[in-house]
Amino acid sequence: MIQKLIEKIQKTHAPIVVGLDPMLNYIPEHIKEKAFAEYGETLEGAGEAIWQYNKAIVDATWDLIPAVKPQIAMYEQFGLEGLKAFKKTVDYCKSKDLVVIGDVKRGDIGSTSAAYAVGHLGKVQVGSKSYYGFDEDFATVNPYLGSDGIKPFLEVCKEEKKGLFILVKTSNPSSGEFQDQLIDGKPLYELVGEKVAQWGEECMGEKYSYIGAVVGATYPEMGKVLRKVMPKSFILVPGYGAQGGKGADLVHFFNEDGLGAIVNSSRGIIAAYKQEKYAKFGPENFAQASRAAVEDMAADIAQALQNR
Amino acid sequence: MIQKLIEKIQKTHAPIVVGLDPMLNYIPEHIKEKAFAEYGETLEGAGEAIWQYNKAIVDATWDLIPAVKPQIAMYEQFGLEGLKAFKKTVDYCKSKDLVVIGDVKRGDIGSTSAAYAVGHLGKVQVGSKSYYGFDEDFATVNPYLGSDGIKPFLEVCKEEKKGLFILVKTSNPSSGEFQDQLIDGKPLYELVGEKVAQWGEECMGEKYSYIGAVVGATYPEMGKVLRKVMPKSFILVPGYGAQGGKGADLVHFFNEDGLGAIVNSSRGIIAAYKQEKYAKFGPENFAQASRAAVEDMAADIAQALQNR
Repeated sequence: MIQKLIEKIQKTHAPIVVGLDPMLNYIPEHIKEKAFAEYGETLEGAGEAIWQYNKAIVDATWDLIPAVKPQIAMYEQFGLEGLKAFKKTVDYCKSKDLVVIGDVKRGDIGSTSAAYAVGHLGKVQVGSKSYYGFDEDFATVNPYLGSDGIKPFLEVCKEEKKGLFILVKTSNPSSGEFQDQLIDGKPLYELVGEKVAQWGEECMGEKYSYIGAVVGATYPEMGKVLRKVMPKSFILVPGYGAQGGKGADLVHFFNEDGLGAIVNSSRGIIAAYKQEKYAKFGPENFAQASRAAVEDMAADIAQALQNR
Repeated sequence: MIQKLIEKIQKTHAPIVVGLDPMLNYIPEHIKEKAFAEYGETLEGAGEAIWQYNKAIVDATWDLIPAVKPQIAMYEQFGLEGLKAFKKTVDYCKSKDLVVIGDVKRGDIGSTSAAYAVGHLGKVQVGSKSYYGFDEDFATVNPYLGSDGIKPFLEVCKEEKKGLFILVKTSNPSSGEFQDQLIDGKPLYELVGEKVAQWGEECMGEKYSYIGAVVGATYPEMGKVLRKVMPKSFILVPGYGAQGGKGADLVHFFNEDGLGAIVNSSRGIIAAYKQEKYAKFGPENFAQASRAAVEDMAADIAQALQNR
């Protein structure tokens, strides 16, 4: 799957992932009205509104981007009906040949991690048959529980040729509270990064491992260090746009070959029509605003990489 | 909710939580056969088998225990059908007046953590209406992302009078890989424990906070230290039984008042009929084996607390 991601990045010239993190207040009124007219102001209605919103954005952007990253929390908040919309979104994006990164941030111990790995990336056995559960291509994973929490995910990834992005340094303001603490003079995130590189060695594609890392765009200096600590790992970089990261901050997350990083933007793209810059599209043409925002983001990153 | 948990512990004399972590290979053949006959060897069939298995165990043990802890990974591995069984289990346990601890180990940043908090503990707004999603009483949470990942959960807990158990020191062998690393001479888990105590101050019940911690039974010495670091936090203690923890290891997790800890056993109770000790019950009476295992576990802990 890392090869497919790389090929798609090279084809689109856009190391970009669109974060499909639908909040109801991002969704234009006409979509909500239609969904609520059909299903009422119910969880089912919310699920339908989310799905229609996602579908329109995917339809307007899929040819420009290699990957999408649905954030499962935004669906899980609506319970089972929300998760149905998550699954529909995953399946639809795969039918458009997009790489799907499930932003699930799961992580547990032994057999429990194995269950998450099976549910999101692999197949579960039921009697003599086996089935895919949510069937994303990559999943994000939390490393706090250590190697025996990660290894069951690695096993499933090897079997399915799928991948992970392991949280190393997150984009939020208080990420340093634990992640930046010094251990023998070295921050915890660096220790986690070293482990990611080590886990990744077992799971190599051609040049890159299919075990990657999450490092926030909001911490470019740390990105520079972590790029060297994990030379063969792809870095998923959240925090561009709405969270404050800029194209120029991102260059150190990439290797000399122009690969090695994929930058996420969620609100900045899916709710672009709410920004002054794209207001001319109006709520009716929100998906076209998203397309314009993708084009601008790709240009911003290309420019920054050219100027480095 | 912490008051309810305490009252139920005092009433049952059993600081015990039954981990409802159904693996298909724990489930007796007669239950699987019936479910597969009705729904086939499908995800739906697996969900039905899990649900019938859980229901029988709950029916056989609910009067002896204060709480249950369904591990969502074991349901999520079966995709949407598994999660339907999770929701049915949560609802059924609540109808039996059990405290339900959703072992979900979620954790993210800002609005994303808020979405998880809403989905598992709170109400989500849909237009003019609001709905509970999964509606557990407590949830387990991963702290790796720091305070701004935890705070949205605290807000929902305050509003709903529900609670958290935050991962501090997990029961697995490699938990020390990151959690035991020394920061200014103090292990990371202790730093996290201090934060739990601090977050808990904002969320006090009468004597105990409704913000608790997870500390593995497999690390009793660390439990002793953490008990003092977080004097007002309940500790959820996994790792008893199958993972190797014994009653005598547990005494330091409790305060002098005999409260402050609740010990989880999963496999040791729900698959008790597979142990030599309870083999006489046979697969047909698996739920009665679970009841006997609960009684033995309660006696083991009571004995250990008496002897301290």
